[in-house]
This record gives sequence, C-alpha cells and structure tokens, in this order.
Amino acid sequence: MTAEIRLAEKLSELKTMLPPPPEPKGVYRPLVIVDKLVYTSGHLPVRASGELVQGRLGADLDIEAGYAAAQLVGLGILASLRKQFGSLASIRRVVKILGVVNSTPEFTHQPAVINGCSDLFAHVFGREAGIGARSAIAAPTLPLGVPVEIEAIFELEG
Amino acid sequence: MTAEIRLAEKLSELKTMLPPPPEPKGVYRPLVIVDKLVYTSGHLPVRASGELVQGRLGADLDIEAGYAAAQLVGLGILASLRKQFGSLASIRRVVKILGVVNSTPEFTHQPAVINGCSDLFAHVFGREAGIGARSAIAAPTLPLGVPVEIEAIFELEG
Amino acid sequence: MTAEIRLAEKLSELKTMLPPPPEPKGVYRPLVIVDKLVYTSGHLPVRASGELVQGRLGADLDIEAGYAAAQLVGLGILASLRKQFGSLASIRRVVKILGVVNSTPEFTHQPAVINGCSDLFAHVFGREAGIGARSAIAAPTLPLGVPVEIEAIFELEG
Repeated sequence: MTAEIRLAEKLSELKTMLPPPPEPKGVYRPLVIVDKLVYTSGHLPVRASGELVQGRLGADLDIEAGYAAAQLVGLGILASLRKQFGSLASIRRVVKILGVVNSTPEFTHQPAVINGCSDLFAHVFGREAGIGARSAIAAPTLPLGVPVEIEAIFELEG
Repeated sequence: MTAEIRLAEKLSELKTMLPPPPEPKGVYRPLVIVDKLVYTSGHLPVRASGELVQGRLGADLDIEAGYAAAQLVGLGILASLRKQFGSLASIRRVVKILGVVNSTPEFTHQPAVINGCSDLFAHVFGREAGIGARSAIAAPTLPLGVPVEIEAIFELEG
Repeated sequence: MTAEIRLAEKLSELKTMLPPPPEPKGVYRPLVIVDKLVYTSGHLPVRASGELVQGRLGADLDIEAGYAAAQLVGLGILASLRKQFGSLASIRRVVKILGVVNSTPEFTHQPAVINGCSDLFAHVFGREAGIGARSAIAAPTLPLGVPVEIEAIFELEG
C-alpha cells in the first residue's frame, strides 16, 4: 500500500482530495485492461470540486499553472485507477504517457508542463516504478478548452 | 459473424459501401499484429468512391460534417481489418483509439467529432466490445488537409 | 548483426555518426520494456554534434529539411536502442511509430516528413521488419522548437 500512503501524503501536502473519477465525455471507457496492461483514455484537468481547468499555454496560462493542471490530470488518472482496482497496489509501474499541451505557436515548454503529471507519478509510485517513457506534444486547442490532456499505459502486478 | 451483420446493416442505413482499404501514403503498413493485439496506422476519411474528405473543424466543417468524416475513418479502419482477416469475426474488442481533429484554435468539440468513429465501433462490435479507451485531441492541420485522422488498437479473439 | 551493418552503411553514406542517446528533458526514461515490446519516449532531432534542429514546416523548413530532421530523430531512437541493448540485433521489428510535425496550418505533407524516419528504419531493419504501422500528425509547436518528434514501439527477438 506504499503508493496509497504516498498519494495520501501528496494530497495532504497539496491540501486537496482526489478529483472525482472522470465520466466519459463521449463513447469511451476511462480505461481498458488487456492482460497486464492498462490503457487509460485521455484525461482532462478536473479539480476536487469537479471544476474543469481551462486555458492555453503561452496565452492565459504560464508554465506553473500548466504544471498544476497536468498534476490535476495525473490525479484524475489515479482516481480512475483506484475506482477500477480499489487501490493503487495493483499497479506495478508506469509504462508510458502521452501528454498534449494546448499551446500557442510560440510556446515550447511542453515538457515542463507535463512534468506536473510525471512528478506526481514518480512521487506516488517511486522513481523506479513511477517514471516511464513519455511524449510531450502540443495542440492548438483541446476538448472543452482545457490546457492539458494526458493518456497513460500502466503495467499491473503479476 | 454478428459484427459482419451489424456492419452490413449500418452500411445499408448509410446507403454506402465500405471505402477501399487505404493504400499507405508513405513507408508504413495499414496494420501490424503482435500476439493478440492489432495496431492500425492513422487512417484518413475516404468515401466509398475513393474520394478524400478535406476541411478543418471551426472553419470549413461543422460538428456534423466532422462526425461524418470520423465515421468514414472508422469504416476505413474496418476495411483494413477485413482485408487482413477476411471478416470482423477475428476482432474481440476495441482497446483504444487516438483521434486527431484538424481544428481552428477556437474549436473545442473534438470528442463530438470522434464520436463518429466511436459510435460506429459501438454499433458494429456491440457496446461491450466496441467501446474502448480513447483520446481526442486537436491538430492545426493534417495530412492532405483531412479533418480527422484516427489510429486504433484492437484485441483479437483467442 | 545485419541491422548493425546496414546502420553503419547508412551512417557512412550520410557521412555522420549516431547522435548521442538523448538525455531526458523531463521526468521520463528514453524507453521502457514490457515483455517483448519496447516503448520509446518521443525523440527530438539531434545532430551527431549534439546540436538540436529547430524550425517549423511551412515556415522555416521545407519538406527536404523536415525529412532530414525526421531521419535524425530515427537515428536518435536507434542510439537509445543501442545504449539499452548493446546492439540492434535484439530488435525483431518496428511495430508502430507516431510522428508529430511542427506545422503551419497550411502545411499538409506530414507523411513526406516522417518518411525520413520510416525510410531509415526500413533500410536498417529491412523492409519486412522495418516497416510498421504509423500515424503522422501535426502540432502548432513542439518542445524546444523542434520540427519533428517521434515515438516508437518495437518488438524484441524471442
């Protein structure tokens, strides 16, 4: 239950709770399990209150705000995992994440934004299991005007 | 053969046929099989006549036209699967799709567009097998000026 | 060691060496292995000198320059594989690549750009093993202002 304890610590440090596990905005599931891999849908940044974060990097939001939004996306992914498995103890490690940042053409700090999710996973699962492969890319807009959308692949315990 | 029957029904309802399985526009295969997973290449919207659909959401195309284009992309993916396996009976379920929508910076309804593909898969494979994980993102342009590009992962039977 | 020989030939033809295996720009690993699949992070175009290539297709760079950048990205991916496995002999085949091209809204030749990576893999691994599934999409900007970012999935030898 180490990941559960580290998550509780992080939430306490952030003075927040897990956001509600996201409800699909279309015809899809939050995650699908194939053998020992979990494929999550793209998650959006939702506060514990249920409020959606909106904005664009390079325009409305600075790197710090983008980092916080990516952290919220990561918390939402963890909420989906806990809803599915009961706890995070089923997760062996992060395999890969794809992070998409709503960006003006001038903004080039997508990795610093996606670190908000990556740092969270590294903390919660530990650096060995929590740091996976990653791509950080940009988009000119995103669903509902959010600043960040992230999908992830996790490996399950035996 | 249930998926085959449902596909025939849907094509009848749409008064169309499957588009021709796409020929690669570069150095790639339409799909690759690894064990029981099928990874498809990004497919573009092609009509049964072979004509490519072009346009951008938020500019030339409205949500309804985008939805229809995403449905065509889904039909093209099904055409690639049938070309490979002879029928859709080999497909156990949809694991994940990544849908990319050619969007102006103001357009934020990417999920409603990608539903054109997701609704098709849900109909053809049934809701249990046909609804997978999904990410819907935006791009400022796409190959050949198409409005939608979608790649998918499927799980094969036994 | 055929792939090693073909790579050496290609590097000789290009009068260059492999770029240094990329150091992560954030909290991630260059690649993660799960059973017989290798998931690479998004790689950026880096010259053998360590210099990063920057620019946007449709603005600063033409298709030929974009192709050369995508080739450099492919060489960087090969450098990461060799660092991990000692040689390319461990690689059975390319499963899939996702190529993202930094593009103006008018640029629609993303496939021709990503061919720079695909042609390299087809040469090094041979056409049967080196050509996988592929998606080529666009972004309005990319990390550090690079023109191309590519992630890949490879299958390992038994």
